[in-house]
Amino acid sequence: MSHISSVRVRDVRFPTSRQLDGSDAVNVAPDYSAAHVTVSTSEGESGQALVFTCGRGNEVVAAAIRSYGALLTGRGTNSLVHDLGRASRLLVHDAQLRWLGPEKGVSHMACGALVNALWDLRARRESKPLWLLLSRMAPEELVDTVDFTHIRDTLTRQEALDLLRAGQEGKEERIAELRREGYPAYTTTPGWLGYSDEKLVRLSRQAVADGFGMIKLKVGGDPADDHRRLRLAREAVGPDVRISIDANQRWESDEAVEQVRALAEFDPWWIEEPTSTDDVLGHADIRRGVGPVKVATGEAVANRIVFKQLLRAEAIDVMQIDATRVAGVNENLANLLLAAKFGVPVCPHAGGVGLCELVQHFSFFDYAALSGSMQERTIEFVDHLHEHFTDPVRVVGGRYAAPSAPGIGARMHEDSLATWEFPDGDGWRRDRNGTRQEEVTR
Amino acid sequence: MSHISSVRVRDVRFPTSRQLDGSDAVNVAPDYSAAHVTVSTSEGESGQALVFTCGRGNEVVAAAIRSYGALLTGRGTNSLVHDLGRASRLLVHDAQLRWLGPEKGVSHMACGALVNALWDLRARRESKPLWLLLSRMAPEELVDTVDFTHIRDTLTRQEALDLLRAGQEGKEERIAELRREGYPAYTTTPGWLGYSDEKLVRLSRQAVADGFGMIKLKVGGDPADDHRRLRLAREAVGPDVRISIDANQRWESDEAVEQVRALAEFDPWWIEEPTSTDDVLGHADIRRGVGPVKVATGEAVANRIVFKQLLRAEAIDVMQIDATRVAGVNENLANLLLAAKFGVPVCPHAGGVGLCELVQHFSFFDYAALSGSMQERTIEFVDHLHEHFTDPVRVVGGRYAAPSAPGIGARMHEDSLATWEFPDGDGWRRDRNGTRQEEVTR
Repeated sequence: MSHISSVRVRDVRFPTSRQLDGSDAVNVAPDYSAAHVTVSTSEGESGQALVFTCGRGNEVVAAAIRSYGALLTGRGTNSLVHDLGRASRLLVHDAQLRWLGPEKGVSHMACGALVNALWDLRARRESKPLWLLLSRMAPEELVDTVDFTHIRDTLTRQEALDLLRAGQEGKEERIAELRREGYPAYTTTPGWLGYSDEKLVRLSRQAVADGFGMIKLKVGGDPADDHRRLRLAREAVGPDVRISIDANQRWESDEAVEQVRALAEFDPWWIEEPTSTDDVLGHADIRRGVGPVKVATGEAVANRIVFKQLLRAEAIDVMQIDATRVAGVNENLANLLLAAKFGVPVCPHAGGVGLCELVQHFSFFDYAALSGSMQERTIEFVDHLHEHFTDPVRVVGGRYAAPSAPGIGARMHEDSLATWEFPDGDGWRRDRNGTRQEEVTR
Repeated sequence: MSHISSVRVRDVRFPTSRQLDGSDAVNVAPDYSAAHVTVSTSEGESGQALVFTCGRGNEVVAAAIRSYGALLTGRGTNSLVHDLGRASRLLVHDAQLRWLGPEKGVSHMACGALVNALWDLRARRESKPLWLLLSRMAPEELVDTVDFTHIRDTLTRQEALDLLRAGQEGKEERIAELRREGYPAYTTTPGWLGYSDEKLVRLSRQAVADGFGMIKLKVGGDPADDHRRLRLAREAVGPDVRISIDANQRWESDEAVEQVRALAEFDPWWIEEPTSTDDVLGHADIRRGVGPVKVATGEAVANRIVFKQLLRAEAIDVMQIDATRVAGVNENLANLLLAAKFGVPVCPHAGGVGLCELVQHFSFFDYAALSGSMQERTIEFVDHLHEHFTDPVRVVGGRYAAPSAPGIGARMHEDSLATWEFPDGDGWRRDRNGTRQEEVTR
């Protein structure tokens, strides 16, 4: 009988801070990193997943994955990958470990990595990309993977089942359409706070030329800079391309209203993370204050219970799920189901290391078998670090192509893992010796 | 010039699960543990603090404290302990580490331990127990330690200053009163879910004989058990002693209303943690549904921003701060100030390892120099593991005696740290060899 024989975790970091890729009002100089996990079985199978971090602290997430991983080692593979709801509960609700969150922060992200590695194992067994595995699973099995704890008052199992059953109609046509035409993307590549005006304008024009219907700019620094940059971007893309703005939680709620109103002349589409994602009622205040500009958040939302707050309080227009913040595929299914119930579009957060590769699957699944709509929906795209993945995203003409490789998308080249393992990989050792490897980021 | 020369972290655990001390509906068999930190200076001073956990995962918190600790090592001691606001921001808002929370879970608790160790250093320098240090600090210096980020829309620096200035009046009289008469306590010792009916009744009677005005029972298991246990406790303590109940987040919000109503005949004082602390709006629903029974929560509330939600939503009657969940003394000052602004009494959570020793200081300070009231206020007391501390709490006649030893209360006996260090301390090695050391818990 196949059992889980090992859980290997690697601390992989890329020195992105050198070029201010990924720089915003809060994350001023991140080194995009991944706590990368490989769950192996006694039969030679393996599942891979990762947690994205901004550099320092990646070792803490790695430690947490190892600690939770001990709960999986020795268990039967089949009982885990064919009852992924139970697998998730085993980790998330461990009676001693639960105190570390509960269900938030480092411990929750670690659970998510292990749950996702099991989904990767399952998808590889069935030779399907995650989105197709999910789309072809029966509604009953899908619902069995969802943990309804503390959301049941707002979304019952039966309601979830009804939503998924409704999503079955026309499913195969939509799967064919996704394979043919992909899914809309937007790009944040032009908008990092550390980029010069010249680079901002050049990359904004390039984004339009590449077919993107929306770009996103980081704001939340000096208000005069925000104003100038947004003006330049609007001039560069013209009136018909959407521009969203992202403050990365930099503001107080009242300040957010004021700042967004001051930028209204440039017609921003949404304001993302105007304030702390824990400030549910603050988001509701902001939404009332900045309309018709939409309010979006999610990359730092700890779990399904907080998303339930944001939806119940009518605090967001757009739900931005993240692939590695919550407890894995299961919890993102809960998030998608909550969004579907409230009629709020899901526009996933991506970028970082591997987030595009992982999160795209949820939008493809959502269109194929849940909401059945692409209306006001788009997946973030940032053109960083894809070359380190065995199955990098393909974005063509402003759209994500349907992933076809089996798995969840977290598999990295062995050479990349070895070179950028922190602190002793060759990339870091060469870096410390002063011979920078320039090709790490574009 | 004195600088921080080392940050030493130890993983200390007590095998409390063997006797089901601390057992509740969610934490079914905890091994009460502490990630214990000693921050030492080049001049031979030291500050100690800890994070409480339930056993497994204590090593993850220890790892996080080590990672954050690297940000302190080498820095000047004076600049840290005389600008504790800056010290906290340095840790909490580190641009790369912030992603791990933000401001929640493992990473936030780790920040709290280091911030608290610096307060311990400061208090020892001034030869004062923490509560007295805080009570004697000028309102301006106290406010400078508070991080108003993401609460400023609800509590400005000026409002905080006004509250603290108002608390100056009559302060010395209240300090004298506290030293003479102490502060009211309640006890959870009788109420653990794993205790027999006989033990419950015996310990409930003992609590009354010991002078406690309130006891607390764990609920959230089988409803018939809850009903029987509450009936037995009410019979044991009579009509005039308060009984609060604690579900440790076991219920959904609608279920909580139903269950509390079913226990109404026994006149429970408050229902604690009826559901997930992330479910702010759920708490508001519950509060509307169970009145006049009060709603209390806080031991798992991640930060001041979530407390702001609970207060703004009128979701709680009682704020239960915890000494090691948030980012240390500074953030608990923010919590106390928020509670004071909303007129909500603070009844700290305690128990575990050292939580009584640490958290008592906040109630003493609150009475001396902030709210100036003991009305509806009481500190939790659980009679576990105090013998491991150099300055254990003294609870006499149902009241905490004012702490007099310098520091924050986290200093443990070297012998206790060495014996119960996990996994290689003598206590654990003997335990594995089958010769259990019975005196670890009473």
